[in-house]
Amino acid sequence: MRPNTFKRKLAAGETTVGAWLSIPSGYAAEIVASQGVDAAVVDLQHGMIGLDTALAMLQAVSATNATPLARSGGIDDAQIMRLLDSGAYGVVCPMISTPQDAAEFVAACRYPPVGRRSYGPARGLLYGGPDYVSRANGEIMAVAMIETRAGVDNVQQIAAVEGVDALFIGPNDLALDLGSEPVPESRDPVVVDAIRRIREAGAEAGIPVGIFASTPEAAAARAREGFLWVVPDNDAGLLAKATARGVAAVREA
Amino acid sequence: MRPNTFKRKLAAGETTVGAWLSIPSGYAAEIVASQGVDAAVVDLQHGMIGLDTALAMLQAVSATNATPLARSGGIDDAQIMRLLDSGAYGVVCPMISTPQDAAEFVAACRYPPVGRRSYGPARGLLYGGPDYVSRANGEIMAVAMIETRAGVDNVQQIAAVEGVDALFIGPNDLALDLGSEPVPESRDPVVVDAIRRIREAGAEAGIPVGIFASTPEAAAARAREGFLWVVPDNDAGLLAKATARGVAAVREA
Amino acid sequence: MRPNTFKRKLAAGETTVGAWLSIPSGYAAEIVASQGVDAAVVDLQHGMIGLDTALAMLQAVSATNATPLARSGGIDDAQIMRLLDSGAYGVVCPMISTPQDAAEFVAACRYPPVGRRSYGPARGLLYGGPDYVSRANGEIMAVAMIETRAGVDNVQQIAAVEGVDALFIGPNDLALDLGSEPVPESRDPVVVDAIRRIREAGAEAGIPVGIFASTPEAAAARAREGFLWVVPDNDAGLLAKATARGVAAVREA
Amino acid sequence: MRPNTFKRKLAAGETTVGAWLSIPSGYAAEIVASQGVDAAVVDLQHGMIGLDTALAMLQAVSATNATPLARSGGIDDAQIMRLLDSGAYGVVCPMISTPQDAAEFVAACRYPPVGRRSYGPARGLLYGGPDYVSRANGEIMAVAMIETRAGVDNVQQIAAVEGVDALFIGPNDLALDLGSEPVPESRDPVVVDAIRRIREAGAEAGIPVGIFASTPEAAAARAREGFLWVVPDNDAGLLAKATARGVAAVREA
Amino acid sequence: MRPNTFKRKLAAGETTVGAWLSIPSGYAAEIVASQGVDAAVVDLQHGMIGLDTALAMLQAVSATNATPLARSGGIDDAQIMRLLDSGAYGVVCPMISTPQDAAEFVAACRYPPVGRRSYGPARGLLYGGPDYVSRANGEIMAVAMIETRAGVDNVQQIAAVEGVDALFIGPNDLALDLGSEPVPESRDPVVVDAIRRIREAGAEAGIPVGIFASTPEAAAARAREGFLWVVPDNDAGLLAKATARGVAAVREA
Amino acid sequence: MRPNTFKRKLAAGETTVGAWLSIPSGYAAEIVASQGVDAAVVDLQHGMIGLDTALAMLQAVSATNATPLARSGGIDDAQIMRLLDSGAYGVVCPMISTPQDAAEFVAACRYPPVGRRSYGPARGLLYGGPDYVSRANGEIMAVAMIETRAGVDNVQQIAAVEGVDALFIGPNDLALDLGSEPVPESRDPVVVDAIRRIREAGAEAGIPVGIFASTPEAAAARAREGFLWVVPDNDAGLLAKATARGVAAVREA
Repeated sequence: MRPNTFKRKLAAGETTVGAWLSIPSGYAAEIVASQGVDAAVVDLQHGMIGLDTALAMLQAVSATNATPLARSGGIDDAQIMRLLDSGAYGVVCPMISTPQDAAEFVAACRYPPVGRRSYGPARGLLYGGPDYVSRANGEIMAVAMIETRAGVDNVQQIAAVEGVDALFIGPNDLALDLGSEPVPESRDPVVVDAIRRIREAGAEAGIPVGIFASTPEAAAARAREGFLWVVPDNDAGLLAKATARGVAAVREA
Repeated sequence: MRPNTFKRKLAAGETTVGAWLSIPSGYAAEIVASQGVDAAVVDLQHGMIGLDTALAMLQAVSATNATPLARSGGIDDAQIMRLLDSGAYGVVCPMISTPQDAAEFVAACRYPPVGRRSYGPARGLLYGGPDYVSRANGEIMAVAMIETRAGVDNVQQIAAVEGVDALFIGPNDLALDLGSEPVPESRDPVVVDAIRRIREAGAEAGIPVGIFASTPEAAAARAREGFLWVVPDNDAGLLAKATARGVAAVREA
Repeated sequence: MRPNTFKRKLAAGETTVGAWLSIPSGYAAEIVASQGVDAAVVDLQHGMIGLDTALAMLQAVSATNATPLARSGGIDDAQIMRLLDSGAYGVVCPMISTPQDAAEFVAACRYPPVGRRSYGPARGLLYGGPDYVSRANGEIMAVAMIETRAGVDNVQQIAAVEGVDALFIGPNDLALDLGSEPVPESRDPVVVDAIRRIREAGAEAGIPVGIFASTPEAAAARAREGFLWVVPDNDAGLLAKATARGVAAVREA
Repeated sequence: MRPNTFKRKLAAGETTVGAWLSIPSGYAAEIVASQGVDAAVVDLQHGMIGLDTALAMLQAVSATNATPLARSGGIDDAQIMRLLDSGAYGVVCPMISTPQDAAEFVAACRYPPVGRRSYGPARGLLYGGPDYVSRANGEIMAVAMIETRAGVDNVQQIAAVEGVDALFIGPNDLALDLGSEPVPESRDPVVVDAIRRIREAGAEAGIPVGIFASTPEAAAARAREGFLWVVPDNDAGLLAKATARGVAAVREA
Repeated sequence: MRPNTFKRKLAAGETTVGAWLSIPSGYAAEIVASQGVDAAVVDLQHGMIGLDTALAMLQAVSATNATPLARSGGIDDAQIMRLLDSGAYGVVCPMISTPQDAAEFVAACRYPPVGRRSYGPARGLLYGGPDYVSRANGEIMAVAMIETRAGVDNVQQIAAVEGVDALFIGPNDLALDLGSEPVPESRDPVVVDAIRRIREAGAEAGIPVGIFASTPEAAAARAREGFLWVVPDNDAGLLAKATARGVAAVREA
Repeated sequence: MRPNTFKRKLAAGETTVGAWLSIPSGYAAEIVASQGVDAAVVDLQHGMIGLDTALAMLQAVSATNATPLARSGGIDDAQIMRLLDSGAYGVVCPMISTPQDAAEFVAACRYPPVGRRSYGPARGLLYGGPDYVSRANGEIMAVAMIETRAGVDNVQQIAAVEGVDALFIGPNDLALDLGSEPVPESRDPVVVDAIRRIREAGAEAGIPVGIFASTPEAAAARAREGFLWVVPDNDAGLLAKATARGVAAVREA
C-alpha cells in the first residue's frame, strides 16, 4: 500500500502545512495541492462539495505530492466509508466531544475486527494499491476535531482513544460554543486557554494537533507554538483576499 | 434591458478592475466576482471551462455587481452566440489581427441587420430583461484582443471597425508572436513598444484598452499608464500564489 | 446582511407566491424564479437534486428577486447546515410532528448559543454580506412542515416553538397519513379539516402558513382562504402539464 | 436497428408534435418527452446545453416513446457526428441557405460512401442495435432549417438535395433576416409569404416541413395549415409561461 | 404501472443475472445494462456515485430492458425515498442484521399505511406510469443484505418480515464479520456455511436469494447452487480485469 | 518539465499498450489507466466526452503511471489547445490525409515560433512543471491518424512533416473510405495492404505507428507485426464484452 506520507511526517515530528478545500472543482484542488502543501482536506462539512465532486477532487489531489484527506459532515458511517472508498487517506470528523464520539468515529474508519467499515475499497485500491484492504487500518488517519466546551473538557480521554491519529482545532466553532465571538485569531482568554489545553493534551498523548488559521502569518505563529499541522486559510478565503488585494491596489492607483 | 454598467464606466473614462476566471466552478466565480471587481471574464480559451460550466459561472457572476463577460476560443460563431445566449454581456475574442477579423467577430455578436447573430436569447432574457433582443446590439460589448504582430500593425484599422467596443492586450501571446519571451511584465522593448502602440491606438480611436497583468502591483502600474481595464492575474494564478505564500510562511517559521 | 424580503413580506401580512424546484438545473431554477415569485424552494426531499446541484440552483435564484430557500430531506443537521452555508435564506423541513422535532430542527438552523449550527458560512457571506454570521439567526427562516396526524394534533405546540418562522402544509403526505388518498385538492373532510386546523393554528400563533397547490386556480383559492404563502404546483408539474396541453391542442387540430 | 418511428410517421403523412429542449437536464428532458410528443430535439444551438449534458438528455428521451433528435450549432462535422454517436436519430441544422450547405450537412450525417461520417458508433449501437452502422444512413434524419432570405430563395433546390429528410422553419431568424421583427406568429406579409413558400416547396418535393410555434394554439393552427411537425414552444418558454400564470392567478386572488 | 419484470422472473423461479454499477456515468450504466442483464443495481454504498449521478444512471438503465435498482448506504429514509423517487424499482439495503432492521428498511420503501415513504413520486411517475403511487408498494422490491454474523443468525426471522422481497449476500463483508478474510469465493468453512444457511433460509421462506460473485465462472457456479440472482462482478472489476488482460496479452507477445 | 515517458518508450523502440477512453468518467479513466497501460487517450471524437469531463479524466490519468493523451475531433485549433492546456501530453488528430493537414495539426500543438499554439498553459504547468512553456514543444506529441485512401497515398509525405511524432491507424474509417466493410480485424486485402503501407512508412521515416485492435489477441498480433503502440479495444468495448461474458456464463449454467 502506498504509504501515508503525511501521517509519517507527523509521526516524525515535522511541522506540516495543510490545505483546506471548499471550492467544488478538481482543478482548484490540483492548483492548491500543487503548491507544496503536505496534505489537502476536501471539506464536505462547510465546503460546497457533494460526494460526486469530492471524488474528482481526491483524484486531483492524488496527482500531486499532497496526501488526500476529507472532512465529513459528522459521525456519518455511510459518508465516512464513501470518502475512504474514494481514496481519502484520512477523515477529519467535526464535533468530537466525548471519548464515545471518538470511538464511534474511529470504528467507522476501520475494517473489522477493529471497526465496522464495510468492504468495497473501490478507488482505495487504485490509489493505495492491491494490498489496500489488509493495510488500510494502519495507514488511514482518523482525525478528531475538538471544537466544543465538552470536547475541551474531555480532550485527554479523546486523545487516549485507540485509533485517534490526530486532533484538529476548529477555532471558530470552539469560540461560539465557549460563548465567545468567532473572530480570526481570537485573543479572548477563554478561547486562547482552550486552544492551549488541546495542544498540550495532544503533546501529552503523543499525537499531533492541527489548527485552522486565518492567514499565512497566523499559521506561522501556530507552527511556532508547536502545532504540527497548520492550515493558512481555506481556498475560498485565500482566493477572496487575493482578489480583494488586486482590486484595492488598482483603486488606489 | 439591464444596462451594461461596465461598458458605461469605461465610456465615462473610469479605471476599472476586471477578474479573469479559469476555474470551472460557479462558486469560485462568485467568490471572485464578489470582491468589488467591475467585470468578470469567463475564459473559454485557456480556462478549464466548457459550455455547460460557463452557464453556471455566468449565473454566479450575475448574482454579484460585476458585469459578466466571456472569452471565446476564437472567431467561432456558434460558441460566441451561445455565450451571449447564456447571458454574457460581452465577448472577448482572441487573436484579432486584421480589420476583417474584427468585422467578422463583431458580426457574430450582433443581431441582423447589423450582424448575423441568430435569434434565441434564452438566458439573455432572464438577465437582460424582456426588451433584450431589441437592445442587445447596443449593450453587448465586442472586445478585440490584440496579441500578434499583425494585430499591432493593424491596430488603428481594427479600432476603427464599427462595433469594436474595446481592445484587450494579451501580453504573453504578443511576446511570443514578436519573438520575445512570455515573461510577466516583459521589459523587452519590442513588447513594451507594441503595448504602447495599442494603448495609443485605443486612445486615438476613443475606445478603452484593457490588459492582463501578473500581480496587483503590475495592474496598478498599468492603471497609472492609462489602461482603463486592468486584470490583476487570473483566479488560478491568485489562488496558486496565495497558497504558496501560506506554505512559505510556515516553512520559514 | 441582505434582508430576507420574503420573511418581511410574510411578517407584513402580504400574500406571497412561492416556487418549488425539483428539476436539477440552475437554468430551470432561474427561469422559474424570474417570473415574479416571492420565494423559490430548492427541494432536496423529493426533487431530483443533490448538494452539488443545489448550490448552482441557489446561485441562480440569487440572481433574481426571489428569496432562495431549500427543503431538506429531514431533520438532518449536516444537510441543513450545508444548505444554509450554500446561501439558502430558509429551510423547509418535512415531517415535523412534535414540538421536540420542531426544536431540534430550529436548533440546526441557528448559531450558538441559540442553536447548534456549525461555523463555516461559505456562500452565506457572499449572498448575505460580511455581517452574515452575527445576523443570520434573525434572518434565516425555519419552516416546519405539518403533514402527519401527529403534526396536526400538536400543531399549536409546534407553532409555539421559539424560532419556528412558518408552517407549511404538504397535503399529499397529510392525506396519506390520515388514511385518505393523496389526490389533488382533496375534498375528504378529514383532510379538509386538518388543513383548516393548521391554518388556524398559524393564525393564532401569529406565524404565516404556506401550502402546496396543484394548479394556479387552486393556489388562488388557498390565497383567498388566508394562506400567506401559496405554491401553484412545482416546476415538474408545470412543465409536464404545459407540454401535455401543447400535445393535446395539436392532436385535436 | 430500432426503426426511426418519427421518420416513419412523417413519411406516412401523420401530423406530429415535437418538443424542443433547452434546459440542460435529463430529468426535464424526460418530463417533456413523456407527455406524448413524437420527437424531442436537444438544442445545442440556443439551448443551454453542452455535449456532456446532451448525452444525458438523449438517454433520457430514449427511455420514452419520443424519438431523440438534436440541433447542432451549425454545419460542424465534429459536433454533428458526436450527436449521432450519442444516439440522436436525426440532426436539425440551422441556417441552410444553399443546396451546397444542404449537401455538406447531409454528408456529415452519413457514413461513406454516401457521406463522410466517421466510424465510432458508441451509444448509437446501444440505442439502435448491433446493425446500426449498416443501416444508420437510412434511418437517421437530416433536417435542414430554412431561416434566411437566401434559404427561401433556394428552398426548392435545397429540398431536392439527396438525403434532406425534412425542412424546418425558424420563424424568428427568418423574420430578422427578412428585415422584419422577430415577433411570435408574425403577420408581416413578408414573413407569412416566406413561410408559405417553404411549406409549399416541401409539399412539392414530397418531404415534410416542420415549424416552431409560440403557443399550443399557434401550433395547432400550423398543423391545420399542413405542417406535419409542429413544436408548441420550447421547454423554457412553457415553464416560464406556466409559472407566470400561477403568479398572476394568485396576485389576482 | 410498468410491471417489475425482474421481480416477476424471480417469483417465477427463473435464474437471473444482475449487474452492479459503481462507475458514476450514465453511459457506462447503459453499456452494462444493454448486455442482457435482468437487473442493474446503482450502488450508492461503495460505488463512486452521488444522488445527482444516480438519477442519470437510473434513466440510462431505463432505456434498456434491465430493471433499475439501487443500493442505499444504509437504512437511511431520506436516501431510500430519493432513490425510489428517482425511478429505482427496488432498493438493496446493506447490513440488515435483525428483523427490526428489516422492518425499518421495508417501511422506508412503502407508502402508508404499510410504511412511511413520503409522497412525491417525481420520476417514479415517468418510468412507472400515472398509477405509480397506488401500485408502487406491490411492485417495488425491498432487498435485505445479509452480511453479518448476526444477520446469519437471524436470517429466518429476517426472511419472514412482511415486505422483504429478496435476500442478498455480500460475501466480503460477511467474511470480515465472521473473522475470516475477504477473498474472492472464499473456501473458509465458516463463510461457506453461512452462505449456505442464508440460501436455505430464503428457499424455506419462499423468497429469492442473490449473491455477488467475483467472476463469470463463479457466478455460474452460484446459479447452479440455486441462487436465483447472481452478479458476475461489478463494472469496475470487469473493466479493470478486461484491461489487464489486454495489457498482459501484448506484454507476452 | 515532467518527461513524456510514453514518447521516450516509443523512441527507444519499446512495444507499448495504450488505452482508449470513451466513458465520460474520471473514475473509469483511472481504473483503466491503473492496469499497466503506457498511455491513455481521452477520446473527444467518438468518446462521449466534452471538455468539462475531459479535464477530470486527464487529471485521473495523471494520478497513474500512464501518459495522458487526447484525441481531438479534428484539426480544431481551439479544441487542441484546450486539451493541451488541460494537461494532455499529446494529441491524436483524426483524418490527416495530406502533408498540409499534418502541418496544420502540428502547428496547433506547438508554441511560436514553431507553431501557433496560444499562451495559457493552465493545468499544463501543474502536471508538467514550471518550465512547461519552454519545453512543451519538445515533449508534447502530435499523432496523425491515417484513415483515408488519400492518407495512405500520402503517408510518406505526412510522416516526413516536421513535428509528426507518430502515426496512428483507425482501421474502421480506413476500411470505409477504401470501400470495404468496417469489420474487426478485416482480412480484405485492400485494407490489409493499406495498413501494411502505413506501418512500413512509419518504419522508413523512423516514427512509431500505432493501431486500434478489437481484442487483446488482435492487439498482441499487431505487436508481433511491429506496431509499437497497440490498443486492445476501448473501455466501452471491453466493458460491454466482459459483461456479456458474465451473462452468457450464467445463462449457460
